[in-house]
Amino acid sequence: MTPATPSSSSTGLIALDWGTTSLRAYRFNADGRVADKRALPWGIMNLPPAEEGTDAAADTPDAGFRRALQAACGDWLRDFPITPLIAAGMVGSKQGWREAPYLDVPLAVSEVGNTMTVVDTGFGVPLHIVPGLLQRSALPNVMRGEETQVAGILDQLQVDDLLIGLPGTHSKWVHVRGKRIEHFDTFMTGEMYAVLSNHTILGRTMQRAAADTTDAEDNAAFARGALVAKSADGRAGMLSNIFSSRTLGLTGELSPRAQAHYLSGLLIGHEIAALLATTDGIRQQRIALIGDDALCERYRQALALYDLTNIEIAAAATEHGLWKLAAHAGLVSPSPRTSRK
Amino acid sequence: MTPATPSSSSTGLIALDWGTTSLRAYRFNADGRVADKRALPWGIMNLPPAEEGTDAAADTPDAGFRRALQAACGDWLRDFPITPLIAAGMVGSKQGWREAPYLDVPLAVSEVGNTMTVVDTGFGVPLHIVPGLLQRSALPNVMRGEETQVAGILDQLQVDDLLIGLPGTHSKWVHVRGKRIEHFDTFMTGEMYAVLSNHTILGRTMQRAAADTTDAEDNAAFARGALVAKSADGRAGMLSNIFSSRTLGLTGELSPRAQAHYLSGLLIGHEIAALLATTDGIRQQRIALIGDDALCERYRQALALYDLTNIEIAAAATEHGLWKLAAHAGLVSPSPRTSRK
Repeated sequence: MTPATPSSSSTGLIALDWGTTSLRAYRFNADGRVADKRALPWGIMNLPPAEEGTDAAADTPDAGFRRALQAACGDWLRDFPITPLIAAGMVGSKQGWREAPYLDVPLAVSEVGNTMTVVDTGFGVPLHIVPGLLQRSALPNVMRGEETQVAGILDQLQVDDLLIGLPGTHSKWVHVRGKRIEHFDTFMTGEMYAVLSNHTILGRTMQRAAADTTDAEDNAAFARGALVAKSADGRAGMLSNIFSSRTLGLTGELSPRAQAHYLSGLLIGHEIAALLATTDGIRQQRIALIGDDALCERYRQALALYDLTNIEIAAAATEHGLWKLAAHAGLVSPSPRTSRK
Repeated sequence: MTPATPSSSSTGLIALDWGTTSLRAYRFNADGRVADKRALPWGIMNLPPAEEGTDAAADTPDAGFRRALQAACGDWLRDFPITPLIAAGMVGSKQGWREAPYLDVPLAVSEVGNTMTVVDTGFGVPLHIVPGLLQRSALPNVMRGEETQVAGILDQLQVDDLLIGLPGTHSKWVHVRGKRIEHFDTFMTGEMYAVLSNHTILGRTMQRAAADTTDAEDNAAFARGALVAKSADGRAGMLSNIFSSRTLGLTGELSPRAQAHYLSGLLIGHEIAALLATTDGIRQQRIALIGDDALCERYRQALALYDLTNIEIAAAATEHGLWKLAAHAGLVSPSPRTSRK
């Protein structure tokens, strides 16, 4: 008797969102729907260790990436042996499995999928790594992973022109015109908040709370901070403004918990003020946000304080983009599913 | 025979510059000249531990401050028993020996010495703690210690109007008109540089070098960074601009060592650009800098890039100010020495 295995015809793509600290794996049906998904902690800076007794000298970086791949989807690779395999994110950086050279911006979104870097995985199928993007301006900018989310959201929303905000550790704002990525900026807002609250004097009087359990006082403190950048005091700049998170505590105006929300608002407000100062016609612009739900809500709240209200929050952009880029690369056949939301 | 002890008539003041991480002690002659000085690591967050075998419950905070005072100048207090004792800095904060309430800005510099907080030291003489200053603006500002340096420099330079820059962990810019402190700002520039280079992705590709051993390439990188805030790219703000410290490394334009100097310049440039944006008539303003020599040189270099060249660097402002405030407080008699440089 033949063991009952899933039919390989049902699976069209195995795709990885492989970042610095996490690895997400998706198994798509041939029609582009996600059949299964997993999240693991095996980011490129945190690969699974070799088994005890392994000769350390023989444990190459390659072997670490293979162990992570095995852990994430070894069973899928075995059960669906001819399925194409794609990955986006920091796995294509210099510190990743193989460096996938940057493509220069501006470029058409459809071009991103045309230049994959191929790695022999040892599992019978090669891994196709999505390139990052490089903008060679006076102050250059880079992204890895967000290009895939951009491809996903454009396809989902069926639009050609969009300003896409990807808030997070390093927020990206991506300007798309006629399905071309024209320009993008990076703001180190999330990482800035983390180091200010964990490693500076501001953290000493502050009590951090999760953004998804906020109450009215938290929201008021967030809004107060978000408005600083557009006030007269905002002209003193972020290096000066952030100190008020401490001094408003000293004068009894902000509780320890409110200070955390105020500082978060203050940084996001400066990000939005800078976006306004550098973006022509932003008030006529349709804007989409992709990212953590609670954080996107915060950004929506702050954008409204700057009279930007034409905002939508997009979901599942990463997996949608991985499928879309695989289609651009000819790894899967485009299906009607990919052009519907 | 009487042992040969120093004549107590020769000493006029024992003064402490007592901060968070360090304690500096000065012994002044009756004419206001520094006869002896010492630097110890016993800042208020780092007091000397009790001797082994001491009952921990009996070790009050007071006892820790007394041990630090004993270590810094127990011999002076013994040899010159009726000498007044003064301290400025974080020793007067809530976490210090005794909280010395803030005085409100604006105020005359001479008023600072009129409201000392007195602590029983247990050494026979009380300690007079200089108050900090509080500016109750929409975004409040505070200082502790810098008010003493301001008093010192005004007296040294014999001026009534001055913009005083005190670069450091938290840079202060103090506007003095008619010997009154009218306004001041705080920029967290030094602490920002420390956390960005020690705790963010920017530090990973960076090699930090001491500011006092710079070469021509270092200086060029510093200047390049300092100019960003006044360039068109500066409109994207600091949260965006700092990312270029990494990307200019990725594109091969900045070496690891140059990245450190570039980031330092970038932050200081944003501080100066904000100062220009918020200070009327700054180009006609006489400016003095007080602080670490190498850092003041960096600021002078950056200020020149913003066409601010009417700069002088002041020395020994702290000890001069401690003497001056003691004179304002009636603890010592003003002497001709205090009105000469």
